[in-house]
Amino acid sequence: MIPPRIKYRKKILYILDQRDIPFRISYFKAKKVDDVTKAIKEMMVRGAPLIGDTAALGYLIGIDNIISKKLINKKDIIKEIVSNSLKLKSSRPTAVSLFKNTERVHLKAMEFLSGCDNKLTTKDISELRKTVLKEASDILEEDRISTLNIAENGIKLLKKNSRVITYCNTGALATYGIGTALGIITEGYKKGIINFVYACETRPYLQGARLTAWELLKNKIPSMLICDNMAGWIMKTEKIDAVIIGADRIALNGDTANKIGSYSLSLLAQKHKIPFYVAAPTDTFDIEIKDGTQIKIEERSSDEVTHIKERPIAHKDIKARHPAFDVVPAGFITAIITEKGIINRPDYKKVKKNLL
Amino acid sequence: MIPPRIKYRKKILYILDQRDIPFRISYFKAKKVDDVTKAIKEMMVRGAPLIGDTAALGYLIGIDNIISKKLINKKDIIKEIVSNSLKLKSSRPTAVSLFKNTERVHLKAMEFLSGCDNKLTTKDISELRKTVLKEASDILEEDRISTLNIAENGIKLLKKNSRVITYCNTGALATYGIGTALGIITEGYKKGIINFVYACETRPYLQGARLTAWELLKNKIPSMLICDNMAGWIMKTEKIDAVIIGADRIALNGDTANKIGSYSLSLLAQKHKIPFYVAAPTDTFDIEIKDGTQIKIEERSSDEVTHIKERPIAHKDIKARHPAFDVVPAGFITAIITEKGIINRPDYKKVKKNLL
Repeated sequence: MIPPRIKYRKKILYILDQRDIPFRISYFKAKKVDDVTKAIKEMMVRGAPLIGDTAALGYLIGIDNIISKKLINKKDIIKEIVSNSLKLKSSRPTAVSLFKNTERVHLKAMEFLSGCDNKLTTKDISELRKTVLKEASDILEEDRISTLNIAENGIKLLKKNSRVITYCNTGALATYGIGTALGIITEGYKKGIINFVYACETRPYLQGARLTAWELLKNKIPSMLICDNMAGWIMKTEKIDAVIIGADRIALNGDTANKIGSYSLSLLAQKHKIPFYVAAPTDTFDIEIKDGTQIKIEERSSDEVTHIKERPIAHKDIKARHPAFDVVPAGFITAIITEKGIINRPDYKKVKKNLL
Repeated sequence: MIPPRIKYRKKILYILDQRDIPFRISYFKAKKVDDVTKAIKEMMVRGAPLIGDTAALGYLIGIDNIISKKLINKKDIIKEIVSNSLKLKSSRPTAVSLFKNTERVHLKAMEFLSGCDNKLTTKDISELRKTVLKEASDILEEDRISTLNIAENGIKLLKKNSRVITYCNTGALATYGIGTALGIITEGYKKGIINFVYACETRPYLQGARLTAWELLKNKIPSMLICDNMAGWIMKTEKIDAVIIGADRIALNGDTANKIGSYSLSLLAQKHKIPFYVAAPTDTFDIEIKDGTQIKIEERSSDEVTHIKERPIAHKDIKARHPAFDVVPAGFITAIITEKGIINRPDYKKVKKNLL
């Protein structure tokens, strides 16, 4: 129903250009690692899990380029894959799965290479590709399975006939599976647990208006779009049973970096005594980060705020701030829902226990 | 510097079409009362005080139409002006000055007519017009003076070098003078009290992005545009000394109806211990309304959310909620700033005292 987000065919990685959705289904063809980093940087592909999946396949493109270039010196190959790995990891700063998945395939490749001679045989090269392909495929499949488990866990937290608010896009379009927060909503609706959804439009990129509202429509889930600034008033004046959002990076104490606006939404939910849930696979946790203060917030271009699809919404001389993310303090989170289980009222101890 | 918002010349009311600003300066020519109600309904003219001013001049158009039609029967004239008055008052539901100013000119007209015979003489008609013109001119002049006094009062509340957040547009474009909340900011900047402003874009109509950011630019005030969903994060991570907004209608207990998103902003300010000020002329108070629960919230078209300047931002089958206003509870307001003075921590008693 939702078109494939990424597919690798004959040395080309087809990346669904999400900037055009729902108005046009088109694929960007990535043939080099630089194409993949471009697609990530320019937000053709977005959503933390899907960015991670794309990076894994991007790494595979790098291997195929090595084969095309007929590199056989181990030194040259290592130089190339280290460079590719760095490029991929630096394409965006927040989604932790981007780093983890790149590292993961890279480690497998390096591990394999450590057993090879200085000059690789044709068989070695073919085995290297197989190793990387296997790891990338595992990553994708794990993402898919993980979204199903997140949904199963998340549904347990909700009352029958729940009306929920969601933010940004955390659906099929953000993952290789059914989605994280939106996956819970999709499955919850099927099971009669959720019966109405408000999708926040999520400025400036309007992922909520363009992507989430579209996924809800495709799945025939009763829903309405709202501007981000309406969420508080709706919480005050209507029955809202939960807010469910995704995550880009979670610190060890449960502080959660997510799309700009998530912080305000969590505070509004707390004030109105509405449960606030974060749904994310465990690979969203960054064990190197103790709390949210250590998360670097990506500041993107002013133009992305002052223009909507290249069309100005403000005078040309006006500058805008554009922090792309913010951090929801663990104290505002009712529970973090992962594929492994539910972390109620997350803190350092509970997160650590869940990760082990 | 900011172009005239309304001007009445040779039986035509020129209304600056604010939907096109800052991209085009164009005037809608209103020749009948229906043109004026159209301009108000379709938000060519907006901002509570300016809507009120426009209604007063709209009423004058009605009188000029009576003259053109050569009506002389008192009964016919009264029927016409009662109808005009009702049309104007029902053009939008929230701005209280729209009702008050229409009533004000209408009462003057009715008062004058009560002294006339059943058939009006040419002199009577000319006097009727003079009476209405005088009242409408007074309303405009009072609005202008009132904004200067609001600015003077508001500045007293601010510390030197304040960095403030403002919402929607409450500047020259919203009044016949320098503005309410934005008037304080403009004057505050001139006096070195305010040194930086964040303008929230204010979805769905983007009055902040289009109008406020433009007024700040024209007045050379250091400022940046932000999406509405960034305000909370900026309050948390930067020095913000005050939030200053306008008002469309204030209940007797201080509850304030204002542009959708104001409620969330007030709650975020409270949470971050940032003073939250409402700036409005006293005619914004509705003495018939005890508290915010009695304020009817205008629900506008879904299309205004799903489209930006006729261009869709979501799939065509997606529906959106569009409450145009919300209510900031008096308890979240540090002070209401009027032309008559400052109402600190507003409540029923203090508001009543200020109005008398």
